[in-house]
Amino acid sequence: MSVYKLTYFNVPALAEPIRFLLSYLEIDFEDSRFEPEQWPSIKPTMPFGKVPILEIDGKILNQSTAICRYLSKKAGLAGSDEWESLLIDIAVDNINDLRQAISLQVFEPNEESKAEKYVTLTNETIPLYMNNFENIVGENGGYFVNGKLSFADIYFVAVMEFYIIMLKMDLLNGRPNLQAHKKKVLDIPQIKSWIAKRPAFSMQL
Amino acid sequence: MSVYKLTYFNVPALAEPIRFLLSYLEIDFEDSRFEPEQWPSIKPTMPFGKVPILEIDGKILNQSTAICRYLSKKAGLAGSDEWESLLIDIAVDNINDLRQAISLQVFEPNEESKAEKYVTLTNETIPLYMNNFENIVGENGGYFVNGKLSFADIYFVAVMEFYIIMLKMDLLNGRPNLQAHKKKVLDIPQIKSWIAKRPAFSMQL
Repeated sequence: MSVYKLTYFNVPALAEPIRFLLSYLEIDFEDSRFEPEQWPSIKPTMPFGKVPILEIDGKILNQSTAICRYLSKKAGLAGSDEWESLLIDIAVDNINDLRQAISLQVFEPNEESKAEKYVTLTNETIPLYMNNFENIVGENGGYFVNGKLSFADIYFVAVMEFYIIMLKMDLLNGRPNLQAHKKKVLDIPQIKSWIAKRPAFSMQL
Repeated sequence: MSVYKLTYFNVPALAEPIRFLLSYLEIDFEDSRFEPEQWPSIKPTMPFGKVPILEIDGKILNQSTAICRYLSKKAGLAGSDEWESLLIDIAVDNINDLRQAISLQVFEPNEESKAEKYVTLTNETIPLYMNNFENIVGENGGYFVNGKLSFADIYFVAVMEFYIIMLKMDLLNGRPNLQAHKKKVLDIPQIKSWIAKRPAFSMQL
């Protein structure tokens, strides 16, 4: 049996879709979390100076989306043919574009640029993406792709949690399809168990 | 036979890996290019207001990396098993992180933030990524993954061309493994033919 070790800050963010998928697969994993003050000494030891990483039998893997796609294949959540896999990959990258726009605003070090980005983010980017997602889920039987659970659904719910908190905006407000979608994902028994047992997280990255 | 139509600005950038892969597959495609002044009227008609899009038999696909992965599977360039596909996906996302860091600096609208980003990009991000890529290609028999041509190799050469031009820095200078790697990709007969026949591009996005 393979040994899995996940290393990240003590927050959900980019690690949480991996934690959700490992839980969905009922794979035991070491959930190694560090505090922000440990990061300067850890950063130089990480591939490209970034986390999360997942170690499988000591082999170090970076890039959370690639890791999630790999785990999703094992879970049967990465598409039943190449076309469906394509649609799921597109949905995940659309979700990542929104996540990244939020992240770039929240972590922008220049105060003036941060203020400018906030205006674009809240007036244009978030309404555009969230309204599209609301419609896509409405038109696809309550899921992102083809009326069935996929990697994209788990990814959206797991990764957006932290960025919504960081942004201090309820992005699901007034979007009933996405509210029902979130409930459905969090009601999956293995994910419900994970949420019930996961440690409280700090708010700092 | 399916009908392929690619829509993008008249530059390589995010569309070029798709053009390389369609050429590699010897798939005829309509290479629809527009000028910057046409963009305001095109943008609202595009998924999430972005390009490139690829239409296959009229079905509109966005997200260039997802499209490339789909085409790569048809070309046998997406990995021979799930583990190799994971390693290729990781390599592509590492490449995308560098591409995006360059893009975020080049297109940063705030002048002060743009200057700050330039310092981080040239002193930290570019050396870190390019030196790692040089080593990775050196350690993997001249390719990004497992000593054989994959999606990651074509993606790197095709996507970086434009961003290197935008940045006005020769990122391959002093990196012989990456120079040889570029030559090898551009010497693939179908890619060589594409380069010989592709239209001259404008420098504006």
